[in-house]
Amino acid sequence: MAIRVAVAGASGYAGGELLRLLLAHPEVEIGTLTAGGNAGTKLGAHHPNLLPLADRELTETNAAELSGHDVVFLALPHGHSAALAAELGDDTTVIDCGADHRLNDPEAWTRWYGGDHPGTWPYGIPELPGGRDALRSASRIAVPGCFPTVSSLALAPAFAAGLVEPEAVVVAVTGTSGAGRALKPHLLSAEVMGSASAYGVGGAHRHTPEMVQNLSAVAGEPVKVSFTPVLAPMSRGILATCSAPLRGDLDVAAARKVYLDAYGDEPFVHVLPEGSWPQTSATLGANTVHLQVAIDPDANRLVVVGAEDNLTKGTAGGAVQCMNLAKGLPETTGLPLAGIAP
Amino acid sequence: MAIRVAVAGASGYAGGELLRLLLAHPEVEIGTLTAGGNAGTKLGAHHPNLLPLADRELTETNAAELSGHDVVFLALPHGHSAALAAELGDDTTVIDCGADHRLNDPEAWTRWYGGDHPGTWPYGIPELPGGRDALRSASRIAVPGCFPTVSSLALAPAFAAGLVEPEAVVVAVTGTSGAGRALKPHLLSAEVMGSASAYGVGGAHRHTPEMVQNLSAVAGEPVKVSFTPVLAPMSRGILATCSAPLRGDLDVAAARKVYLDAYGDEPFVHVLPEGSWPQTSATLGANTVHLQVAIDPDANRLVVVGAEDNLTKGTAGGAVQCMNLAKGLPETTGLPLAGIAP
Amino acid sequence: MAIRVAVAGASGYAGGELLRLLLAHPEVEIGTLTAGGNAGTKLGAHHPNLLPLADRELTETNAAELSGHDVVFLALPHGHSAALAAELGDDTTVIDCGADHRLNDPEAWTRWYGGDHPGTWPYGIPELPGGRDALRSASRIAVPGCFPTVSSLALAPAFAAGLVEPEAVVVAVTGTSGAGRALKPHLLSAEVMGSASAYGVGGAHRHTPEMVQNLSAVAGEPVKVSFTPVLAPMSRGILATCSAPLRGDLDVAAARKVYLDAYGDEPFVHVLPEGSWPQTSATLGANTVHLQVAIDPDANRLVVVGAEDNLTKGTAGGAVQCMNLAKGLPETTGLPLAGIAP
Amino acid sequence: MAIRVAVAGASGYAGGELLRLLLAHPEVEIGTLTAGGNAGTKLGAHHPNLLPLADRELTETNAAELSGHDVVFLALPHGHSAALAAELGDDTTVIDCGADHRLNDPEAWTRWYGGDHPGTWPYGIPELPGGRDALRSASRIAVPGCFPTVSSLALAPAFAAGLVEPEAVVVAVTGTSGAGRALKPHLLSAEVMGSASAYGVGGAHRHTPEMVQNLSAVAGEPVKVSFTPVLAPMSRGILATCSAPLRGDLDVAAARKVYLDAYGDEPFVHVLPEGSWPQTSATLGANTVHLQVAIDPDANRLVVVGAEDNLTKGTAGGAVQCMNLAKGLPETTGLPLAGIAP
Repeated sequence: MAIRVAVAGASGYAGGELLRLLLAHPEVEIGTLTAGGNAGTKLGAHHPNLLPLADRELTETNAAELSGHDVVFLALPHGHSAALAAELGDDTTVIDCGADHRLNDPEAWTRWYGGDHPGTWPYGIPELPGGRDALRSASRIAVPGCFPTVSSLALAPAFAAGLVEPEAVVVAVTGTSGAGRALKPHLLSAEVMGSASAYGVGGAHRHTPEMVQNLSAVAGEPVKVSFTPVLAPMSRGILATCSAPLRGDLDVAAARKVYLDAYGDEPFVHVLPEGSWPQTSATLGANTVHLQVAIDPDANRLVVVGAEDNLTKGTAGGAVQCMNLAKGLPETTGLPLAGIAP
Repeated sequence: MAIRVAVAGASGYAGGELLRLLLAHPEVEIGTLTAGGNAGTKLGAHHPNLLPLADRELTETNAAELSGHDVVFLALPHGHSAALAAELGDDTTVIDCGADHRLNDPEAWTRWYGGDHPGTWPYGIPELPGGRDALRSASRIAVPGCFPTVSSLALAPAFAAGLVEPEAVVVAVTGTSGAGRALKPHLLSAEVMGSASAYGVGGAHRHTPEMVQNLSAVAGEPVKVSFTPVLAPMSRGILATCSAPLRGDLDVAAARKVYLDAYGDEPFVHVLPEGSWPQTSATLGANTVHLQVAIDPDANRLVVVGAEDNLTKGTAGGAVQCMNLAKGLPETTGLPLAGIAP
Repeated sequence: MAIRVAVAGASGYAGGELLRLLLAHPEVEIGTLTAGGNAGTKLGAHHPNLLPLADRELTETNAAELSGHDVVFLALPHGHSAALAAELGDDTTVIDCGADHRLNDPEAWTRWYGGDHPGTWPYGIPELPGGRDALRSASRIAVPGCFPTVSSLALAPAFAAGLVEPEAVVVAVTGTSGAGRALKPHLLSAEVMGSASAYGVGGAHRHTPEMVQNLSAVAGEPVKVSFTPVLAPMSRGILATCSAPLRGDLDVAAARKVYLDAYGDEPFVHVLPEGSWPQTSATLGANTVHLQVAIDPDANRLVVVGAEDNLTKGTAGGAVQCMNLAKGLPETTGLPLAGIAP
Repeated sequence: MAIRVAVAGASGYAGGELLRLLLAHPEVEIGTLTAGGNAGTKLGAHHPNLLPLADRELTETNAAELSGHDVVFLALPHGHSAALAAELGDDTTVIDCGADHRLNDPEAWTRWYGGDHPGTWPYGIPELPGGRDALRSASRIAVPGCFPTVSSLALAPAFAAGLVEPEAVVVAVTGTSGAGRALKPHLLSAEVMGSASAYGVGGAHRHTPEMVQNLSAVAGEPVKVSFTPVLAPMSRGILATCSAPLRGDLDVAAARKVYLDAYGDEPFVHVLPEGSWPQTSATLGANTVHLQVAIDPDANRLVVVGAEDNLTKGTAGGAVQCMNLAKGLPETTGLPLAGIAP
C-alpha cells in the first residue's frame, strides 16, 4: 500500500525538489500540498517543471490540511515546525527540512536562531557513525543543512580515525538555489552571473554550529570549524573544500583507505578514483556526495573536497532517504544515483 | 524479460544521456558500451555523473561488439550507421541518433552532407501526424535532430490546419551540449559564458532541410524555412521562436484550440496554460516539449515558442521513446515527465 | 571648461553604466546624483564597481537638485521626464534614457504606455539616416530602447535600399540587466541560470512600435515588425536575428556592399569580415554594434545578425554619444571601442 | 613622446587584455604584435572585441620582431622569456607575464617547473612592502601569478603585523580564463557551466610556492600555505578566501585598522566598508583588488576575502602598472578603477 505523503511549503525550491523525487518514488502517493502566501494558487505556477502536478492546488499550511498522511515533509522557514508537529501525532512521520530541530544544545540554538530551543530530533545523515540507527522507525526527523551534509561527510572519517587536529577550515562554493526564492537584490541574476562573492564570513553562517556538532561528536572532542560560504553563478551544487592539520605522518594512500573503509558500502557517498576530483555537475539531481582526498605535505594538512546537489542530497533527497529508513523501505528506493550532465 | 541494449558512442554527450535514461528504464538491461578514440577506457572517466556504470569498459565500435543485443543505439558522427546496421541483422532494432537516415530526398542528402544517400529510415517524432504508426515494430529508426524536433512540433499543427503561409522563420537559442564534446575554440567556457552568438546563419545549418521535410509533409505543399541557431551560455536546452504569416483572421483562442486538439492526448508535448511562456529549465532532463501560442495582429503572424532539452526529448529521450514504440512497451516507460529546476 | 553633468536614477543599472562611462570621459565633471527610494544612501552601496564615486551621496530626484548642470541624464521609470524637463530650462541639455519621448505618434503612445503623449524629442540613433543632424545642438534627446537600437541599425540599410519587403521578423536574445533591478521572481538567478525563456511574445513588447517607427521612416512605407525578446543566462548583451523577405535577386556580396556603404565611416557600427558572426561578448562595455549579413536563397530572406551591449550602446553609451553631439564634442569622445573579453 | 610597446603572445587571453588596456593608455603606442601558431593571422580573428586593432597582423615571436620597442610584454608559455630577454638588451623594458622569473629559490623553481632556474627578476606587486622600490626604473619585471596577487595582498598586512600564525589556508574560486585558451575537455563550456570543481588540490598548483615566498618575506619567517583553486562557471574573476590562526586576541576593528593603514593610500587596493563583502563583478576589467576582513572568534582565525579580475589586476593590469612605475609615469596612468557591472 502506498505511503501517503504531504509537503508543506511546496511552492519553494526545497518543496519542488521533494515533489520531483516523490513523483519518481515507487512507494509514494502524493497527497496534500500546502503553501504560505501562495496558498490558493496552482503548483504549475511555481514549478513549471513538475508537469504531472501542474494543476494541483496549494492549500494553507496548517495541521488540519496536513493530517491524515503517513509522512509530512516540512519545507518551511524556521520557527514553524514544532507547533505543527505537536498537532500531527506520533503516527505521522514528520520530516523537517528546516533548522528547528537540528541542534542538540539549547544555548547554541538561542545564540544562532534566537528564542527558545524547539527541541532536538534524530538527525538525518545516515552515513555518519551511528546515524542510521537513530533514523530507523523515527517519527520525527531533522534534515541537516546543505552545507553541513557535504562538509560533515567530507571530514568525519578523518576525525573518527584521529588523523587530524580539531581545527577544520571549510570553504564551500554554492549555487544560489540554497538561498531559496527570496526576492533579495544580491540574488538577482544580473548580480550573480559572472560573479563570485562571499557572505557570512567569520563564522557568521548558521550552518557552522551544525558542523561543529557533527564533527565534535565524531571526534570525541570539541572541533573548531572556520566556515566560509561563497556564492557562485550556478543554480545548484555545493563544492566544499575542507581541510585540517595532520596529527602525524600520513600519505594519501593511507588517507584514502580510511575513506574507502568508511564509505565503501554506502550507496550515496562515493570516494572518486585516484586522479579524479569532484565536480558539482556530476551530482546534479542525484542523491550523491562525491569525495576526493589529498595530503599536502608542505602545508601539513589533509584536504578533502566534496560535491553534492544542495537541493537533492543536501535537502530533499536526504529527506526522502530518511523517509525510506523511517518507513522500513530499502534506503535507496526511488533515489537517483546518476546525475544529469553536462 | 529485459530488453538487452547496447550503446555505440557511449563517451559522448548523447551517449551519456542515453545511459542516464536507460539506467532508470525498468525494462532494460544495459549491455555493451562502445566508443571510438575512447575505446579501452572506463565510462566513469567520461561521465562521472553515471556512478552505477563508472567501471564499465568501453570497447571498439564495430558490429561484432554490438551484435547480440535486442536494441542498439548509435550515437556516432554521421556516415557510420548504414554499414554498421547492415551487419546487425533485422532482429536487432537499430536506433540512430545521427543524421544518416533522416532525409527522404537523396539529392537533399548529397547537397547537405555530401556523398551518396545512405537511405531513409522511419523518422522518430511520434507526435507528428502519422509519426507513431511508422515507428511501431520498426527495426530501423532515425532519431531527428534536436532543432527539428521542437521546431516541427511547434509549427506542425498550424500547417496541418492551414493557418499560415508556407514561409516559416525559426530562431532557436541552444545550449552548447548540442555541439558535442568537440574541442573547438568557440566552445571554450571562457568564450561562451556571458555571450550569445549566431552561427549557421542564412540557412546554412544542416537541420534546415529536416524542418522543411517535416513541415512540407504536414502542410501538403512546399514550406520554406528560414532557420537561425543562436548559441547561449547554458549547457542544455533549446528555446525555439517559430513564426509564419497568418492566412486569414485568427484569434489566439482559436489558435490555442488547434494546438490543444493536436497535443491534448500527448504525454510529452504540453501546451502551457494561457499567460505562461516556455522556459528551457522546466524541461531539463525531461522528455518533454513545452509550447505556447501567440497571435501578433500588427505583424499578422502566428508565433509559437517551444522549449525542450536538446539531449533528452531532442536526442536520447526521443530515442528511448522510439524504442518503447518499436518494442511494444507503453510509450512513456522509463521516461521522465518532470524536469530538474531550478 | 568641463561639462557639468547630473544623473537622475543613479542607483539603477542604466545610471551605473552612465557613471562608469562618464568617469572615463575627459570633458565631463560629475555633479549631482539622485535616486528615488535610494535617496540618502551612498552610491557605493549600489555600485561597488564604481570605486571613485563610492562615497557620493544620492539625493532626491527633483528639479532643484538637478538644476545648475550643463547636461542632465534621466534614467527613470517612464512618466517622469516631461515634468522634470519642463522645470530645467532650455540651457540644460536633458537626455532621457526612458521611453517618454521616443514615439512620434500620440495614438501609439497612448496604446503602448497609456495616458497622454508627453511629446516627441530628437531620437538618439545618430547612425540612422538623418539621425545625426537632429541631435547636433539638441537640448532634449530621447535615447532609444536597447532592442530598437541594434535591430534598427541591423535592418535600416536594407530598407533604405529597398532590398526587402516591409515585413521584418526580429528575435533578440538579451541578458537580464535590461530588465533593471526590479525584484521579480523570474529574474532571480536560480531561475535564469541554465535557462532561456521568451516573454512579450506576439508583439507585446513596448519596443515594437519604436522599431516600426524607425524602419518605416527609413523604408518610406509602413513596415510590419514581428518582435520576440528571449531572456538568456547572461548579465549583458543583445544578439538580434533580423530578417525580411527579399524583393528580388540579391547575393551576399551585393548585400554586404549596401551595409559597408551605409556604415563604412561609422566609428561605432561595424560590419564584420566575411565568415565572422557577431557575439555579444565582443561588445561588452563598448559603444559598438557588430553586424553580419547573410542571404538565405532557399527561404528567400535577408538575415542580419547584430550584437550590442544593452547597457552601453543600447542605453548609456548611446546617451553619451548623443551628449557629445549635442555639446559639439567629437562624437567618439570618451567612448570605448574595445569590449572586454573573454 | 609615446612609449612604443610590443606584445608577444598577443592572440591569447593575457595578450588580449594587455592590448585592451594599452589601447586606453594615453602614453603608449602599440607596435609589433607576435604569436606562436597564430603568426600570420590577423588579431581580429582572435579578439573580435579589439576593433581598433582588428586588421593588425601577428608576426612570429622572436627577438628580431620584438626589438626596437621601449617596452616588450611577454605573454608566453613558461620557458621562453629568458632567451628572448637576453637578446633584447637592457634599454628595452621586458615585462614577463609568465612564471619564469618569479621565484627566488632555484631549488623551488626546479621542483615546480623542472629544469634550470632562469633567474629572478623584480617582482611585480607594488603594494607589497618594499615592492614599489624594486620596480622603479627596472628593466626586467616578473608579473606575479593571478592567484598570488590577490592572496598575497589579502594576507600580507596580517603577517607583517604579526597577527597570525604562519599557517595560511587559501581557497580561491576562479573563472576559467585563467587557464588560457587551451583546448582541454574540462574547459568546454558544457562541462563548466552549472558546475564548480576543484583542481590542483593538496598543494599541487604552481602558484603555491609564489604565495609562500611572498608571505614568508613579509612575515620574516617561513609561512606554510595550503592552497586550493576552485573552478567556477564564470569567465573572469578570482575570489580568494584566506585565513590563518590568530596569535592573540584581536577584534575586527583592530584588524581592519591594520588593513586600512596598509592600503589606505593605495589606489588599486581597496578595503571595503564594514558590512560589504567582495564580489568579483565589482572588479571586472578594473585594476583593483577589493578586500574585507573578519575575525572568527569561535574558530580563532582571521579571515580575509579578496576579489580581483584575474586578467586585469591579476595579469595584464598589474603588468601595465609595473610599466608605469618602470617608465616613470604616474602609477595609475591609463588603468581603470571602475569595473563593469552588472
